[in-house]
Amino acid sequence: MEFVLTILGSGGALPGIDTNPTAQCLRYGTHHYLIDASEGIQTRLTKNGIAHHKIERIFISHLHGDHYLGLMGLLFTMHLHRRKTELHLHAHRGLAEIITLHLKHAGSALCYPLIFHPLPEDLGTVIFENKHLLVEILPMQHRIPCVGFLFTEKQGPLKLIKDRLPKDISIEHIGMLKAGQDVLNADGTTKYAVEDLTHSPDPLRSYAFCSDTAFDPTLASKISNGSLLYHEATFADEDIEKAKETWHSTTSQAAQMAKLSGTKQLLIGHLSSRYKDPESLLREAQQIFPNTRLAEENKVYTVGD
Amino acid sequence: MEFVLTILGSGGALPGIDTNPTAQCLRYGTHHYLIDASEGIQTRLTKNGIAHHKIERIFISHLHGDHYLGLMGLLFTMHLHRRKTELHLHAHRGLAEIITLHLKHAGSALCYPLIFHPLPEDLGTVIFENKHLLVEILPMQHRIPCVGFLFTEKQGPLKLIKDRLPKDISIEHIGMLKAGQDVLNADGTTKYAVEDLTHSPDPLRSYAFCSDTAFDPTLASKISNGSLLYHEATFADEDIEKAKETWHSTTSQAAQMAKLSGTKQLLIGHLSSRYKDPESLLREAQQIFPNTRLAEENKVYTVGD
Repeated sequence: MEFVLTILGSGGALPGIDTNPTAQCLRYGTHHYLIDASEGIQTRLTKNGIAHHKIERIFISHLHGDHYLGLMGLLFTMHLHRRKTELHLHAHRGLAEIITLHLKHAGSALCYPLIFHPLPEDLGTVIFENKHLLVEILPMQHRIPCVGFLFTEKQGPLKLIKDRLPKDISIEHIGMLKAGQDVLNADGTTKYAVEDLTHSPDPLRSYAFCSDTAFDPTLASKISNGSLLYHEATFADEDIEKAKETWHSTTSQAAQMAKLSGTKQLLIGHLSSRYKDPESLLREAQQIFPNTRLAEENKVYTVGD
Repeated sequence: MEFVLTILGSGGALPGIDTNPTAQCLRYGTHHYLIDASEGIQTRLTKNGIAHHKIERIFISHLHGDHYLGLMGLLFTMHLHRRKTELHLHAHRGLAEIITLHLKHAGSALCYPLIFHPLPEDLGTVIFENKHLLVEILPMQHRIPCVGFLFTEKQGPLKLIKDRLPKDISIEHIGMLKAGQDVLNADGTTKYAVEDLTHSPDPLRSYAFCSDTAFDPTLASKISNGSLLYHEATFADEDIEKAKETWHSTTSQAAQMAKLSGTKQLLIGHLSSRYKDPESLLREAQQIFPNTRLAEENKVYTVGD
């Protein structure tokens, strides 16, 4: 199943002509999830060929404007396009108040069901689960309540070794093998053995999104052995004091988190607009964690590459 | 004094890749006023070389998202840039509630004075006045409370005919002439006559902004003999029934308003994205009012040209 991340914005808080604050679209097969929704997200969805009607769920990390001010416009646009399907929104409960107030003053009620899921106080909690994925929240250390999100693929069925399968095997027996059950004859002997006819399922992939946070080494165990980690790196190492003051991370701290957690690949973003050479920030991170890339707007990254 | 309008967005409610909903910057000399503030306005200010710190006042017509959802991001950006000067905001009182709620959940207090002026219930009221300009509100007919804004230049002083001025004339006497007072000799005879040494001041210029509104002929008398009128034209004439249902205007209705009011020049905007050929809408308006132009994003129009 395709598991890809499109960066719709990866700049710091101040938008530039061609750079926008945090917004991402994570796609698992045909399922589309938005993660944060900075101002102008609608235009960037269009640029990246992502139709807004495909979005099933939106996850908002926290209520600083650079992470959600494009949401209200997107909700209105879905309304003007007469969306019918449910839209699920996972966010701090304050966002429900904000949306309600905007709608009240616009004299509008959305024509589609917007199902609001306030983020729980207990971190580490599973907030969403379907056949393929689990979504848990990750504790961020920020000036206001803020969470990250961990999207983990669920264990799939065993994979059949097709050229070893008997031609006359029934669908029922195939189902038993994929579920890990040997098929027995009437006398109790083994007719088809799981270990002969199946492979292990694909290794599980996961994507961890760590939005605005001060460095916290205890986070590493919660995202251990991930496939892809996005971690904010607002400041260069020399500005570590500014990072502390503002509850943000430096390049090396983001890289340290990738290393500590055993993640395969790191993307860094949310770089402050004060730095004119993002490549130099990238090099700082790569000294600690070589498999680091810049999260670049309008680029697509595969989870588990 | 330069009196110019920069269009920062003139599309309908749905943003496109290169078209944005309503936002304008009106400049009188060095004074910058924003009129409506759709999503992404910060980027378009930058594109048009308008520094946000120069904006003194913001006027918001109504609380439909396509007219104000870029405001909150702009307020935050001014905060991050440590603005010190006052910012005045004229809008429906609901906007103060919305801003307060966003700030509460962001855990932020703006570092500059944001002075909120709720729009009065009495239409036609002067809401702002300085040495050069008067700003009045215009009644719009829309689904929710909505106003237009009329910016009228004040009568300036008389203009001196420089080559007729005596070389030894004093500053005091010049001031008297500009204010329309003859300068007398001690015996009561006329020393300098206003009619000999001055011209009339420049003719007064005005800009009327008519945002979302159903056609209302009684509006014409309120903007009579204006220099420049921006009027929404959401629908083509053939869709007049849709215009009625949604409290909007057609191309011909916008043109009719320009004609009835004796306005010199008309700009039309807020064209619905359903029309793929804006020129055909322009032609409809020009049949009734030839001096009509499309309000084009990132273009500058002179008031009183």
